[in-house]
Amino acid sequence: MIGSPITPREKDFATWYQDVVIQGDMAEPAEIVKGCMVIKPNGWGVWERLQRELDDRFKATGHENLYLPLLIPESFLKKEAEHVEGFSPELAVVTVAGGKELEEPYVIRPTSETLVGHFFGKWIQSYRDLPLLINQWANVMRWELRTRMFLRTTEFLWQEGHTAHASHEEALEEVLRMLDVYADVAENVMAMPVIKGVKTSSEKFAGALRSYSIEAMMQNGLALQAGTSHDLGQNFGKAFDVQFQSKEGKLDYVWQTSWGVSTRLIGGLIMTHSDDKGLILPPKVAPRKAVIVPIYRKDEERAQVMETASKIARELGAHLDAREGQTPGAKFFHWERRGVPVVFELGPRDVAAGKIVIKRRDTGTKEPIAQSEAAVTLAETLDLMQRDLFAKAQQRLMSNTVLANSIQEVEEMLADATAEKGGGKFVMAHAKDAPEVDARMKEFKATVRNIPLTDGYDGPGKCIITGENVDRRVVIAKAY
Amino acid sequence: MIGSPITPREKDFATWYQDVVIQGDMAEPAEIVKGCMVIKPNGWGVWERLQRELDDRFKATGHENLYLPLLIPESFLKKEAEHVEGFSPELAVVTVAGGKELEEPYVIRPTSETLVGHFFGKWIQSYRDLPLLINQWANVMRWELRTRMFLRTTEFLWQEGHTAHASHEEALEEVLRMLDVYADVAENVMAMPVIKGVKTSSEKFAGALRSYSIEAMMQNGLALQAGTSHDLGQNFGKAFDVQFQSKEGKLDYVWQTSWGVSTRLIGGLIMTHSDDKGLILPPKVAPRKAVIVPIYRKDEERAQVMETASKIARELGAHLDAREGQTPGAKFFHWERRGVPVVFELGPRDVAAGKIVIKRRDTGTKEPIAQSEAAVTLAETLDLMQRDLFAKAQQRLMSNTVLANSIQEVEEMLADATAEKGGGKFVMAHAKDAPEVDARMKEFKATVRNIPLTDGYDGPGKCIITGENVDRRVVIAKAY
Repeated sequence: MIGSPITPREKDFATWYQDVVIQGDMAEPAEIVKGCMVIKPNGWGVWERLQRELDDRFKATGHENLYLPLLIPESFLKKEAEHVEGFSPELAVVTVAGGKELEEPYVIRPTSETLVGHFFGKWIQSYRDLPLLINQWANVMRWELRTRMFLRTTEFLWQEGHTAHASHEEALEEVLRMLDVYADVAENVMAMPVIKGVKTSSEKFAGALRSYSIEAMMQNGLALQAGTSHDLGQNFGKAFDVQFQSKEGKLDYVWQTSWGVSTRLIGGLIMTHSDDKGLILPPKVAPRKAVIVPIYRKDEERAQVMETASKIARELGAHLDAREGQTPGAKFFHWERRGVPVVFELGPRDVAAGKIVIKRRDTGTKEPIAQSEAAVTLAETLDLMQRDLFAKAQQRLMSNTVLANSIQEVEEMLADATAEKGGGKFVMAHAKDAPEVDARMKEFKATVRNIPLTDGYDGPGKCIITGENVDRRVVIAKAY
Repeated sequence: MIGSPITPREKDFATWYQDVVIQGDMAEPAEIVKGCMVIKPNGWGVWERLQRELDDRFKATGHENLYLPLLIPESFLKKEAEHVEGFSPELAVVTVAGGKELEEPYVIRPTSETLVGHFFGKWIQSYRDLPLLINQWANVMRWELRTRMFLRTTEFLWQEGHTAHASHEEALEEVLRMLDVYADVAENVMAMPVIKGVKTSSEKFAGALRSYSIEAMMQNGLALQAGTSHDLGQNFGKAFDVQFQSKEGKLDYVWQTSWGVSTRLIGGLIMTHSDDKGLILPPKVAPRKAVIVPIYRKDEERAQVMETASKIARELGAHLDAREGQTPGAKFFHWERRGVPVVFELGPRDVAAGKIVIKRRDTGTKEPIAQSEAAVTLAETLDLMQRDLFAKAQQRLMSNTVLANSIQEVEEMLADATAEKGGGKFVMAHAKDAPEVDARMKEFKATVRNIPLTDGYDGPGKCIITGENVDRRVVIAKAY
């Protein structure tokens, strides 16, 4: 229930997370629908801001939004062999509609590559129709066994970009362009540093040639895959017969990409910045950036304080917490837990002195400032907080990234790490993109998160499992 | 296929509508998923603008957005007797998930009153929790037999507002407030005049005490219910045991409302304004307000024209159609069909004379203006076009609204009206809110659209069916 204590991170990180989500009015479990949640106003407000930031960037890179149906004929999924194998166990199936058993069942989309394949086949005839760059904002459903709010829910909200190109080279450019967009939003909007890289073949999207990801480190040291961008090659083009006539008059299959981020980002945001007092939101995604809490006892104080508070609230575009029957202390507690970046206090003595007290959520620092400087100080504080949160997360990522030169070392370094107790790390080691490597990591519940696009370490080396030469160190970690 | 001719309205209004939707790149049927459509970029762009206009108004009236699950346990629907009866025939049912038969099936939400009832029961304890004002943007599914793009599709997108109040009076204020918001957006954003009124008991929402609607007239004279706002009374409060402690310490059930508009609005928009050349979009909802088509033959003309065109495009925030291999004629045709409000032409002689030609989509008027005045003229033209479109639609509504004083007259006036041939009217007659009245109208496929909130006619009179006294004339029409 809202108002209950928050479990400290040290005690149990997983319970802390759930407490912060609920106490921050971000979401609550919807026990009546397996693995689903209600996204509450503060959580939805963050999603709206993320949507806007992403959507602006999608449009600036030439994409248009559209909307495809929720349901997919079951037979469609079977057209791409790896795809159906990957998604079959997770499907929710509609067998009855309009009071009748359906001849062919529909599945609720787990993702829309198959529908896109079908429609691309209708829309694309010639090289003049390419590139075709679309995106949709939608809900999807994957019947997961273990769910956690935002991080893994049976229904989730996301965007899925789908593009078709005349050459593999151009498709790959698109894949990396959108990975950059994701990294930009993660780092410069969410203040969450990420590592861009390519997934191993065992970990790629079902039906892709290669998958790229951004990986973030949570406060417990576990990795979170925060976004993916897939080079689909001609796999779906062939499965759905999407051919185009080239400039030279030759028929060829299109080269496709798909890329997505979801409400999972919000889980990453929470586990990157929040503390034992509750939610901390970077200013750029905070639904409310600043709140003013008025302080008064007597009625004559009230009138004076409220007048000044209203004036300042209007000037700053801040929310004035004018609720009656709530103490200032209860109000501070309320906004602190909801992660509002800046809270102002204004009492009778402040009014008399032309001052107001500004308090930062992340550092807890409090400082009286001149009312006339409130707007400038607020802007500076929000800006500084945004940068400080990124720097802090970046520092954590660096200090919890370690090198290892044998599989024993890797295993030891990650042995005690759990979602509950923390202790996770990003272990950088030389490892080959090979099934036996992924299998060996699985033995101690770790995975190769990705092979970084840029090598920040010592270049080539020998794979710690196969002994073969590899290009660079990869990121190994336990993950959500 | 895009590029095919558009059937004239005179010949077959229903086919014209479908042609305009497809040729305007608004949507296309998704035959592979029964009754669904793909909302294409131009259609989605209109929806984005409508969403923004509506959402801003919802927030300004104190509502917060959240998100509830897509699936509802089948048993939930049964908790409100009228509600389940109304929606049962239209449900899509998930019986299998994660590879297993489900113990209790889920239905895909046809609307969310039952889920809201459940969660309101958890969130509301005291009068301090009231009013609770929420909204969600979501997809819903109703398995309809006859579907038409935007107007009636098995899946559609909408917003559903849900609120809980401490008194019936306050709930009713909310119902009417949101009806006003809908009318405001319809008239002042979509340029589509509407009649606000209350539905008869036979036509109300399944589970409501009373339903209110806005009704618009399409170019064929048929009515379109464009938005509804429901006074739910305590029906769902009782079904889901949503009680609150009043200021006086008494327990009572909450008074609820719900209200929604959907992608159906886009169908109304199209049938209000478009013509035989294709789509016409009021400037306020047009994804692209102005396009510049450059005209040149020789290469040296091209450079000059494109330079000036780019400069003006930047100044106006207009889209420059720089596609190669397309004639200017093909470009005009392209944008005309897509309903772009203003198209500019710029040729070598215009460049030399410092002129540019501005063309309005609705009237087809073309006029050379000075390039230096383009920005001002564009703003004025868009503004004028928005007002003219409303005035034209208003004029049509008035001239096709007629009075009748007997059921025979009503029947005669509506006898020949069909969606295909047109000839529809709004017939104003005195009629009682009674099942036998609705039944009599059904005999000639008409309905009482609503009982207007304000009487624009001659006050009380005798019901043309029952002979009883009634307050005012009601709107009778054939409808979508």
